[in-house]
Amino acid sequence: MFAGTAGSVPSARRGLPALLVRRGAERILIDCGEGTQRQLLRSVGLSDLTDIFITHLHVDHWLGLPGLLQTFNLRDRDRPLAIHGPPGIAEVMRSMKRVYGKLCFELDVVELEAGESVRRDTLEIGAVNVRHRVLAFGYVLVEDPRPGRFDAELAASLGVAPGPDFGRLQRGETVAGVRPEQVIGVERDGRKVVVSGDTAPCETLAIAAHGADLLVHEATFGEDERDRARLTGHSTAAQAAQIAADAEVKMLALTHISARYGGSELREEAREVFAATELPRDFDTVDIPLADRGAPTMIRVGEPPKPQG
Amino acid sequence: MFAGTAGSVPSARRGLPALLVRRGAERILIDCGEGTQRQLLRSVGLSDLTDIFITHLHVDHWLGLPGLLQTFNLRDRDRPLAIHGPPGIAEVMRSMKRVYGKLCFELDVVELEAGESVRRDTLEIGAVNVRHRVLAFGYVLVEDPRPGRFDAELAASLGVAPGPDFGRLQRGETVAGVRPEQVIGVERDGRKVVVSGDTAPCETLAIAAHGADLLVHEATFGEDERDRARLTGHSTAAQAAQIAADAEVKMLALTHISARYGGSELREEAREVFAATELPRDFDTVDIPLADRGAPTMIRVGEPPKPQG
Repeated sequence: MFAGTAGSVPSARRGLPALLVRRGAERILIDCGEGTQRQLLRSVGLSDLTDIFITHLHVDHWLGLPGLLQTFNLRDRDRPLAIHGPPGIAEVMRSMKRVYGKLCFELDVVELEAGESVRRDTLEIGAVNVRHRVLAFGYVLVEDPRPGRFDAELAASLGVAPGPDFGRLQRGETVAGVRPEQVIGVERDGRKVVVSGDTAPCETLAIAAHGADLLVHEATFGEDERDRARLTGHSTAAQAAQIAADAEVKMLALTHISARYGGSELREEAREVFAATELPRDFDTVDIPLADRGAPTMIRVGEPPKPQG
Repeated sequence: MFAGTAGSVPSARRGLPALLVRRGAERILIDCGEGTQRQLLRSVGLSDLTDIFITHLHVDHWLGLPGLLQTFNLRDRDRPLAIHGPPGIAEVMRSMKRVYGKLCFELDVVELEAGESVRRDTLEIGAVNVRHRVLAFGYVLVEDPRPGRFDAELAASLGVAPGPDFGRLQRGETVAGVRPEQVIGVERDGRKVVVSGDTAPCETLAIAAHGADLLVHEATFGEDERDRARLTGHSTAAQAAQIAADAEVKMLALTHISARYGGSELREEAREVFAATELPRDFDTVDIPLADRGAPTMIRVGEPPKPQG
């Protein structure tokens, strides 16, 4: 869920950067600009955030943290919370302690190095260096591959009795002369989402994003401001689209939109380069089905999800 | 304009505390919770704020300042800005300098003592001590009295020639035997608005608010939480109404509403004590006509102002 799609200044329609990834019980927030707690309250609620990842230490990407922590405190949160970010995040959080005060839950501030990753159940979240004016990360979220589908009917027809023997087959044992690969399909890739953070066009990111279901890439500017994008360490919509094309992702979602743009002009510029481009509004959501169940779909605020064909 | 009417935690409907007073070219912001810049952008815009007054140093009343300053900077603001508040505000702003960085405009941070006031043209803004868990101010905004109405027709009929002699009369001179008080009505009171900030019921404030056109008073709790209000240095809606009744104000507007209340139950509790009570939503406005032109009116978001009888 896109909780904030503005660039460094909010607008009436777009809040400061924040992206919420929901997967099973996991609620991972990537970046937390000023006002993020309210953006969450206005949409999905904030009760169960599990981890926060900050892409870089520019203020518009983290100033929502102290207020969010204070609100968790006032709500008597008891589960621990981890905030991950580039080196320096620990010092920033220390300096903000006077703002959020003593917390009633455990806060773990984790400084990541590029290339390092964090595991949450069957999800791995890795940090990659991107190209901004300060040290900045993109984040790659990849699920573990899921085992192939077990064909119970076929196994039974080959003479395996339903029950414990099915379990043995699924764990890789040969049972009654039937080998697992006869009744279990090929391993399926897990889903993959890549978030650029703030960056100029970046080859490392394109490589890391290869084959992703969704690439969330900044597009602060349009082609009219290509020079300014270069000078400020940002990307144009068309440049983001080129990264998406190079990385052969399934869908590109543009975010971090400068307040000077309405949005649709950037989407059109990007679509000339990469057709499967979306430009979400605040509170829009991308639904990413398991890999063999179809393409990601954009769900607009207030619209029911489209029925899948 | 009520830019944020929540208590210490925002809700989907209510932003953190902020109140904008517009008078001629003056745009005075009282308190600036996290997200205030966006609340302003979503309503009247933030281009021309002239002064900011902070009631006390609890985070939910000032955390919107660093982001607001940074946005002014990115927009190349050039006019100076003054932030006023209780002792300690200067240190808070110094500690936030790492967040908002170097500004391209002059920022003046002014520590006020209780009883001190600031003049802006014909408006005086005074700080009064209220009763909260920390040193906290309410603010009293009073316009200078306006001279009585000059009756040009009467003056002419008494033999004064229109032109420079009219000016002399209005400046208090006797002209051609006609005394000023013969042709100039009584001096009219300026308008008066009083803002409580966070406070338990406070006699000083009731006295300072005497005869105000509008008292904006906190009503964090309802009668069901009277003990909790006392323990936390807040007021119930009925207590705020009692202050309004004692001070004989024209209108009471309740704000700083705890997220546990919808709002209308607090308004009803207050109206039993003081009938002219309103409970604004975010972005509602109270229009205060000059004293002899009628009572203040509440203008709800999206509703055109009611025609005056």
